[in-house]
Amino acid sequence: MAMKRAATSAIRAFSSSSPSSFGSSGSSTRLLHASAESKKIVGVFYKANEYASLNPNFVGSLEGALGIRDWLESQGHQYIVTDDKEGLDSELEKHIPDLHVLITTPFHPAYVTEERIKRAKNLQLLLTAGIGSDHIDLNAAAAAGLTVAEVTGSNVVSVAEDELMRILMLVRNFLPGYHQVINGEWNVAAIAYRAYDLEGKTVGTVGAGRIGRLLLQRLKPFNCNLLYHDRIKMEPELEKQTGAKFEEDLDSMLSKCDIVVINTPLTEKTRGMFDKEKIAKMKKGVLIVNNARGAIMDTQAVVDACSSGQIGGYSGDVWNPQPAPKDHPWRYMPNHAMTPHVSGTTIDGQLRYAAGVKDMLDRYFKGEEFPAQNYIVKEGKLASQYL
Amino acid sequence: MAMKRAATSAIRAFSSSSPSSFGSSGSSTRLLHASAESKKIVGVFYKANEYASLNPNFVGSLEGALGIRDWLESQGHQYIVTDDKEGLDSELEKHIPDLHVLITTPFHPAYVTEERIKRAKNLQLLLTAGIGSDHIDLNAAAAAGLTVAEVTGSNVVSVAEDELMRILMLVRNFLPGYHQVINGEWNVAAIAYRAYDLEGKTVGTVGAGRIGRLLLQRLKPFNCNLLYHDRIKMEPELEKQTGAKFEEDLDSMLSKCDIVVINTPLTEKTRGMFDKEKIAKMKKGVLIVNNARGAIMDTQAVVDACSSGQIGGYSGDVWNPQPAPKDHPWRYMPNHAMTPHVSGTTIDGQLRYAAGVKDMLDRYFKGEEFPAQNYIVKEGKLASQYL
Repeated sequence: MAMKRAATSAIRAFSSSSPSSFGSSGSSTRLLHASAESKKIVGVFYKANEYASLNPNFVGSLEGALGIRDWLESQGHQYIVTDDKEGLDSELEKHIPDLHVLITTPFHPAYVTEERIKRAKNLQLLLTAGIGSDHIDLNAAAAAGLTVAEVTGSNVVSVAEDELMRILMLVRNFLPGYHQVINGEWNVAAIAYRAYDLEGKTVGTVGAGRIGRLLLQRLKPFNCNLLYHDRIKMEPELEKQTGAKFEEDLDSMLSKCDIVVINTPLTEKTRGMFDKEKIAKMKKGVLIVNNARGAIMDTQAVVDACSSGQIGGYSGDVWNPQPAPKDHPWRYMPNHAMTPHVSGTTIDGQLRYAAGVKDMLDRYFKGEEFPAQNYIVKEGKLASQYL
Repeated sequence: MAMKRAATSAIRAFSSSSPSSFGSSGSSTRLLHASAESKKIVGVFYKANEYASLNPNFVGSLEGALGIRDWLESQGHQYIVTDDKEGLDSELEKHIPDLHVLITTPFHPAYVTEERIKRAKNLQLLLTAGIGSDHIDLNAAAAAGLTVAEVTGSNVVSVAEDELMRILMLVRNFLPGYHQVINGEWNVAAIAYRAYDLEGKTVGTVGAGRIGRLLLQRLKPFNCNLLYHDRIKMEPELEKQTGAKFEEDLDSMLSKCDIVVINTPLTEKTRGMFDKEKIAKMKKGVLIVNNARGAIMDTQAVVDACSSGQIGGYSGDVWNPQPAPKDHPWRYMPNHAMTPHVSGTTIDGQLRYAAGVKDMLDRYFKGEEFPAQNYIVKEGKLASQYL
């Protein structure tokens, strides 16, 4: 299957230039040869406008373009960037028929559908600048023999830090106090009656992969009761270090938590996972932090539970879809602390994922393997977290 | 000096009932005798109004009254609570002439001036429900032979947690994103151009007492460069545990910090300490968190530095005065993340300081010593942090 597109479309030269064809001896010559070819690379990033000039390290923006333009063009490659990604009239769509590499990000996601993949006859490589490639139809990409890779680890610290901030903001009931300040008010009671310490509370993470583990490590000194649910137990060393207890049964964990943090990728299994029934299994007034993906939640179920008080506070930076339309109900629900999708695109994160994309492009041109943990689709197979 | 009021005012019976007269053998008989007397106790707390009934543990409010009314009245004491604290016509002022014990809090501070102390002929004991007794004229209290005590440790965790939340909110540039959400907007660039990871940044605390140390412990897993300035070095064990480096020279530390956290009490030495000159010694764009006391800052200097960009973000819950008037300039300065004074009055903190006040009243009635660390003024002397 991995070779399907390569086999059916000679002009795409998949087998001669895709890193996914590596791993067998003798192929390096063909790939080194491939490196001399000029490639058309398209990047879809959020536009910075007046903010572009305010920070020289703002490489994650359209204007920053990952800081790789000179490097790419000096090697004879074509590099087009755009933020216009939706529909058949978009700038992105114009380049779909002849691009070789498409770079996208979760923050301003270009949805790479099966139809787009079919139209992208020259496409070989889909790179995600950041983490989370669910905006790509991964099964279609696999069926077409494409390689999909992300910069695994590039912004896990960024996201974990942001989660801890959101936990604290909900537990401490920050926003009502802030609103008082900007509205000229002062009413300590209206904040304090539902402000708590994090200490002593039960915090559970649904998923304890790279981000979940970093969160648990950062929660450790807060003296909470830490729980985690995942497909597999963590190494005993890490369990000991964080003091987190494994909960094999998700529902059982949810019923114990004062705070639930979602740290699982969006897959066919997790899509809509937190629906009315699941939320009803949580403690009354539970606080939920979700920086994973908006579509893991049933949108209306979250709104209803925030309105009824079943959810005491909801914070995250992920929405379905993105950008969230003006009338997205999460903008208007009570006790939310939402932002646009930013937690993984700090300046520090941008510099790391820009470096990671450059490294993978360099390897692609040279016909070298990517770091193993970066592959999301390789040789027709999805990475284990997406299965 | 400790005995001045006792010696000059026989009716106050200071020497027979104040815990500050303890520590010498043979006095316990007199104090046990004193316990049979009926005392007039006044508490000044913030009013909860409609929030009073929403949480049975909301003991820090006027209505909650620290949960000690039944206990006090069953022993024959009179217990009056009010939130009306300002001026000669206030409810508090009516009771000043004959109260024995005044309980105040930093969150809704009754300013205990030299004049009030002079009018309070029966006053023996000033208890702070929480930490920070700078709303009391401590020198006047000492001169009058009063005992001042707070519930040391009762909410240090609460405040330290809140500080870490504020650090993260400023570093991650949370509030502009939140404003976008509630205003129907979506502009990742306008947030991301100045959003950073906390990891790798230099964080310095001015003061490493109980709260500063708890903050350093919680910062440890974030992999920052941690610095602290204090009168004295921490124990080597704690330095090793937190990885924080001692900075003897404050100005030298300030010039290195991306983030400065104020963790020093308000004293005559720290009042107005962060003025224009001090702030100019910090890095351009420094982030400042101050949950200590508003009067440690020069109010206008903070406004000017936020406007010029010298301060990149300012967050805290303390103001001068409190409640902050509607026209307090900190409500309107750019890049602030302010709240009313709440960080130490979480429900958890309230339960602890209510228990601590009850314990001290019990000891006072029984003529027993308070926990040593609770004394702010004892036998005419100020605690070391206020010298």
